[in-house]
Amino acid sequence: MKNPLILVSNDDGFRSEGIQALTKAMQGLGQVIVVAPDSEQSAASHALTLHRPLRVYKHSDSIYSVDGTPTDCVTLAIHEILKKKPDFVVSGINRGANLGDDVHYSGTVSAAVEGALSKIPSVAFSLVSWGQEKPIFNSAAHYAKKIMKKVIQEGLPRGVTLNVNIPNLPLKQIKGISFAKLGKRNYEEVIFEKIDPRGRKYFWIGGDDRTFDDIPTSDGNMIQKKMVSITPLQTDMTHYLQLEEMKGWKF
Amino acid sequence: MKNPLILVSNDDGFRSEGIQALTKAMQGLGQVIVVAPDSEQSAASHALTLHRPLRVYKHSDSIYSVDGTPTDCVTLAIHEILKKKPDFVVSGINRGANLGDDVHYSGTVSAAVEGALSKIPSVAFSLVSWGQEKPIFNSAAHYAKKIMKKVIQEGLPRGVTLNVNIPNLPLKQIKGISFAKLGKRNYEEVIFEKIDPRGRKYFWIGGDDRTFDDIPTSDGNMIQKKMVSITPLQTDMTHYLQLEEMKGWKF
Repeated sequence: MKNPLILVSNDDGFRSEGIQALTKAMQGLGQVIVVAPDSEQSAASHALTLHRPLRVYKHSDSIYSVDGTPTDCVTLAIHEILKKKPDFVVSGINRGANLGDDVHYSGTVSAAVEGALSKIPSVAFSLVSWGQEKPIFNSAAHYAKKIMKKVIQEGLPRGVTLNVNIPNLPLKQIKGISFAKLGKRNYEEVIFEKIDPRGRKYFWIGGDDRTFDDIPTSDGNMIQKKMVSITPLQTDMTHYLQLEEMKGWKF
Repeated sequence: MKNPLILVSNDDGFRSEGIQALTKAMQGLGQVIVVAPDSEQSAASHALTLHRPLRVYKHSDSIYSVDGTPTDCVTLAIHEILKKKPDFVVSGINRGANLGDDVHYSGTVSAAVEGALSKIPSVAFSLVSWGQEKPIFNSAAHYAKKIMKKVIQEGLPRGVTLNVNIPNLPLKQIKGISFAKLGKRNYEEVIFEKIDPRGRKYFWIGGDDRTFDDIPTSDGNMIQKKMVSITPLQTDMTHYLQLEEMKGWKF
């Protein structure tokens, strides 16, 4: 495909270092348009804003922001800002992993899935930096470019999103690219209970320190091996095996 | 299972007519605890609130509300309020359909999926009432009870959520229960462009009038036949077929 139209979005906001690194990486590959949230929307998941109007801000001919979620951004980009379907949607580079079950919570992944739901090949990129660790975006950008080049060349079947996680390491220390299934998170949810200045209890859902089950072919294990992990995701959530099972249920 | 602990949540808020109908329907089946959002959270999807603290309000020994999303409610219920895993999570009854691709946006479905991610058998119930149509919750409650009875009896494999949609019809007009796969939404996204009192443009993402592809075994088609539709959902979003395909990619 010659000079494809690439829509770039994320959940950390249009000013974030990660989206700037991704935009720069994409610029050699086609025409790049950024439509991303005004402010950080982490763990926004696939939320769509229906209860209030949305504003679109134009910062340059190729950079727009929206006062909404990642899904709002991709929806407005396709139907209003671009007035046509982009050839690819890329999302990221998220500061923080999106591995295993956590794809369900991720705004970064949801922006890409929204593309896939609109039948556009889509890829989400996340940097596996934990807590206050300094993010090394140039390694991630290097791999984002390499992977997108391949995606443009090979294409993706309708409805498929790629979920890419890149170790937070200098380029030389990364061992290469792997294909992996989603792992399983250990659900030791950390909830912090605190008391406010007025003596009332409040709760904070925490935990950047999530751990994963040890599954040899999973994304989490690939990251531990210092490899880039690529997982294809499906948008059809039907559990076909269970559907067959249930046909025996009598009411 | 004798007297199971059933956690009830939703995305329309703990005061909504739908959750009251569902709570009542569950009361014959086990011990029922409601933990639901304070206010309407429709299209909140699987959002998790990480950027601010959350408050829990106790309204009675069995009714709590949280100033957060459906996913926050289920997380706090399991780890703080109940201090143990419930035997089942049920979510709804949502006012409005959650069919096909729309499961990705639905707070009602996400509350149930959050249960499944924590290895708890979970079911989401939605009433297929469109726009300003008067919702008929008693038919939906009748089927919610019937289906949960069966789920308690048969059990569900780990990680499976059932997504149930019930036609908005008087009980006598409903033709029975069917098992169906998720359909595909027609992505004719409606975006309304308007001008505010200060002359600035704004956008509203609309469309309660979504249409679905005609797929004989899909949930949308079952609803059109006036049947209750049950779709088992998986939490593992890995596209295994594409994963095999991609192993041929060389970088």
